[in-house]
Amino acid sequence: MRASRSGDAWFLALQPGHDLVEAYRGFAREHRVEAAVVLAGIGMLKDPELGFFDGHRYLRTQLRGEHELVALQGNLALLDGEPFAHLHASVAGRDHVARGGHLFSGLVHVTHEGAVRVLEGVRLERARDAATGLALLPWA
Amino acid sequence: MRASRSGDAWFLALQPGHDLVEAYRGFAREHRVEAAVVLAGIGMLKDPELGFFDGHRYLRTQLRGEHELVALQGNLALLDGEPFAHLHASVAGRDHVARGGHLFSGLVHVTHEGAVRVLEGVRLERARDAATGLALLPWA
Amino acid sequence: MRASRSGDAWFLALQPGHDLVEAYRGFAREHRVEAAVVLAGIGMLKDPELGFFDGHRYLRTQLRGEHELVALQGNLALLDGEPFAHLHASVAGRDHVARGGHLFSGLVHVTHEGAVRVLEGVRLERARDAATGLALLPWA
Repeated sequence: MRASRSGDAWFLALQPGHDLVEAYRGFAREHRVEAAVVLAGIGMLKDPELGFFDGHRYLRTQLRGEHELVALQGNLALLDGEPFAHLHASVAGRDHVARGGHLFSGLVHVTHEGAVRVLEGVRLERARDAATGLALLPWA
Repeated sequence: MRASRSGDAWFLALQPGHDLVEAYRGFAREHRVEAAVVLAGIGMLKDPELGFFDGHRYLRTQLRGEHELVALQGNLALLDGEPFAHLHASVAGRDHVARGGHLFSGLVHVTHEGAVRVLEGVRLERARDAATGLALLPWA
Repeated sequence: MRASRSGDAWFLALQPGHDLVEAYRGFAREHRVEAAVVLAGIGMLKDPELGFFDGHRYLRTQLRGEHELVALQGNLALLDGEPFAHLHASVAGRDHVARGGHLFSGLVHVTHEGAVRVLEGVRLERARDAATGLALLPWA
């Protein structure tokens, strides 16, 4: 990964083969980013695993093969003091039909070009929600 | 809503049950934000209402049930001195198929995690366009 | 195009009829932007041409007619000293079904409202990759 900094923003260029979610988590760990917004992420993903939360658990589907990564949004926060990357992705195969949801995993294919904005002074600390089991951010 | 500021950016965490479009408009009103870009918005939406503008009017469809909010983009501007949130959203149900368009409404489900960037010094004032009836921003 | 600056961000309002990709490239040229992230882009597109890279070449499909532009992400960089706009788009027609991929072209319809963040001090220089023929950014 090449991570280039410009003030409170970082541009990330990732090489093929790395898991995208793990790469964002690793970026946060290496550069001690505790709160950030994922501004954009394009390129391609292989075998992306998407999730839909049904109220009790995630229904997961691993899409097979290569997909254009159409859009990536989310944030970097902390859970139990460790970096946590919450990412939603939209992907499209050769028929261009877009599929999307919570991104569990996906291997960078050809390239990944992303960007994050660090939120200096903001605490984004997740905690397990008893009702859903999800790691949520406080809204109050 | 918890709105956390970091320079010219705000991170927004919204609780379930609130209408997303109204929440962004309310954020703009409360914090006197007159020009901003919506950088990202993830989480889930219930019963999102999407629009497609056919040149004369919006064709609206309210999707039933819970959907992952895959991506949210848009801006906060003014119309007749009042905050105006122009949002486009991409959502996906349990089949992961993405649907998108102009977002008229949608209830936050489980959580919403968004971010905006304020555009200090920029005037974003919409005006009704005679040809379409839409509240457009000047491009000249 | 009206391009309004706020620090390291620009808000772009485009009039109908212009090609979106060419407009972003023209923006970069006119304002000497050599490295930037495309933060958001909404409005509508006519006849957007989407691409899926199959490992050897792009499979291109031109979608006919007007589409809501649901999301736009990407970046502005340099290739051989000239501005290069790498954009991925998600669009939806009147059935709201989202299609997406690499955006080759598309005419602004009704309006386009976008924003970019300039990455001061970052060099984004693309080079032709021998294996794929693509203009990639270095990741090492």
